[in-house]
Amino acid sequence: METKSENRSFGGTQGVYSHASEACGCDMTFALFLPEEARTAPVPLLWFLSGLTCTHENAMTKAGAQAWAADHGVALCFPDTSPRGDDVANDEAFDLGQGAGFYVNATQDPWAKHFKMWDYITEELPTLLERNFALDRERQAISGHSMGGHGALTIAMHLPDRFRSVSAFAPIANPTESDWGRKQFTAYLGDDTSTWALHDSTRLMEERGFDGPVLIDQGTDDQFLHLLKPEALAHAMTARRQDGAFRMQKGYDHSYFFISTFMEEHVAFHAEALYA
Amino acid sequence: METKSENRSFGGTQGVYSHASEACGCDMTFALFLPEEARTAPVPLLWFLSGLTCTHENAMTKAGAQAWAADHGVALCFPDTSPRGDDVANDEAFDLGQGAGFYVNATQDPWAKHFKMWDYITEELPTLLERNFALDRERQAISGHSMGGHGALTIAMHLPDRFRSVSAFAPIANPTESDWGRKQFTAYLGDDTSTWALHDSTRLMEERGFDGPVLIDQGTDDQFLHLLKPEALAHAMTARRQDGAFRMQKGYDHSYFFISTFMEEHVAFHAEALYA
Repeated sequence: METKSENRSFGGTQGVYSHASEACGCDMTFALFLPEEARTAPVPLLWFLSGLTCTHENAMTKAGAQAWAADHGVALCFPDTSPRGDDVANDEAFDLGQGAGFYVNATQDPWAKHFKMWDYITEELPTLLERNFALDRERQAISGHSMGGHGALTIAMHLPDRFRSVSAFAPIANPTESDWGRKQFTAYLGDDTSTWALHDSTRLMEERGFDGPVLIDQGTDDQFLHLLKPEALAHAMTARRQDGAFRMQKGYDHSYFFISTFMEEHVAFHAEALYA
Repeated sequence: METKSENRSFGGTQGVYSHASEACGCDMTFALFLPEEARTAPVPLLWFLSGLTCTHENAMTKAGAQAWAADHGVALCFPDTSPRGDDVANDEAFDLGQGAGFYVNATQDPWAKHFKMWDYITEELPTLLERNFALDRERQAISGHSMGGHGALTIAMHLPDRFRSVSAFAPIANPTESDWGRKQFTAYLGDDTSTWALHDSTRLMEERGFDGPVLIDQGTDDQFLHLLKPEALAHAMTARRQDGAFRMQKGYDHSYFFISTFMEEHVAFHAEALYA
């Protein structure tokens, strides 16, 4: 593991690190914020998965999460959103290939060789973090934005024992019924749609739900509402009587100005579960 | 004036606007955050001047200032740091020309035609803001980072009736004695060093001071300490018995991770003066 940068931030350290990833078959970069408390004891960890086109850097610099994580003594991990590099398959579209891993293990060529973001986020990166940083693996929570909200929700519902709480900002909520989903799942997973359902938050909510609190924020002026399909997930959460809240935030769009506005409440929401 | 974008942020609006600047002889872009209170009455305004290489965008997206400005009902203006465009003189170095206006009126060729950032920040842009937005011109404060901290301090001491308070993050504090200053003042203002002293915060503090509170934050691990020369300004503030504080912040560097950490305290500092 190589330290790319470390900056003092809110009494803790905002680091950026890279490492050779076995899962993805390329070097991967991630950002980790450690609050001051991590100097003396392992701290809880909140994962934040980012959206289309993002690297580890966008949320690290624009979401304003460190202020609140420091307040609560919580670490933050911002992974990249796909494998990267000249040897890694790509597509001219912004919503397929590099920057658009969709948090699945690709089974189809040319993607299968490197696009194993599910394994990377759920297995390889957690193991690396536990070995190298003062983190308490028993106290984890997960959040994300857009494609990353999709990732956070699907991963949380698959691994209910790992995460105490899950939240999302404007998640791609029903990808099997959206052009943000069908296109990528066809490319990465193939035509057999039975493999897709494992990666659809609405379907997972209908079938499994989450054994903990769920918080979703969605802007009413989001330019991608027709692709995100929040109504499907809100229906599924309510029909299941899922512990949680689905909040429509008037006037907000899909940007980091929306995310940063509600980040304080998301971090506090997770901190309550992490310190319960 | 053209609206480039407007995003809901912390209950208010983060806008980006461009306009044809007479002072700079080119189109200029600025960002303005208006808190919710501006919908019903004029609000106080905090200027934030950015550092070398920045546009209006860096501090708007990375400083985390909107959260605190919204708390206090204060507007934020993030101007650009120089004239821009293919017709505007430039230099290959990052610290001269576009992105490095140094908040002076250039008198020397090839800079004199466009590089009038002093007039732009102190006259043209304030007039434009007053005409177009719900801002209270009687309640203004000013802050900035690095080259922008230099700009904030020098402008505040030149225009003491305009600003109730001034703060800076890691300002270029003594540019007439630094390679961040001598090079640029020679290029923009010429060899007559008597014209330079008007643009040196340490000298202005010695000669004039500021009729209001001053807050300076400087990281102890700042990689540019030898260029910033904080000790000169701290000496001048103390020798003058200037109302204010010069704080050395242990372990922090020159980055936005430093700025965002202390932004809450800077906005609160200015809000106290603006609402006194």
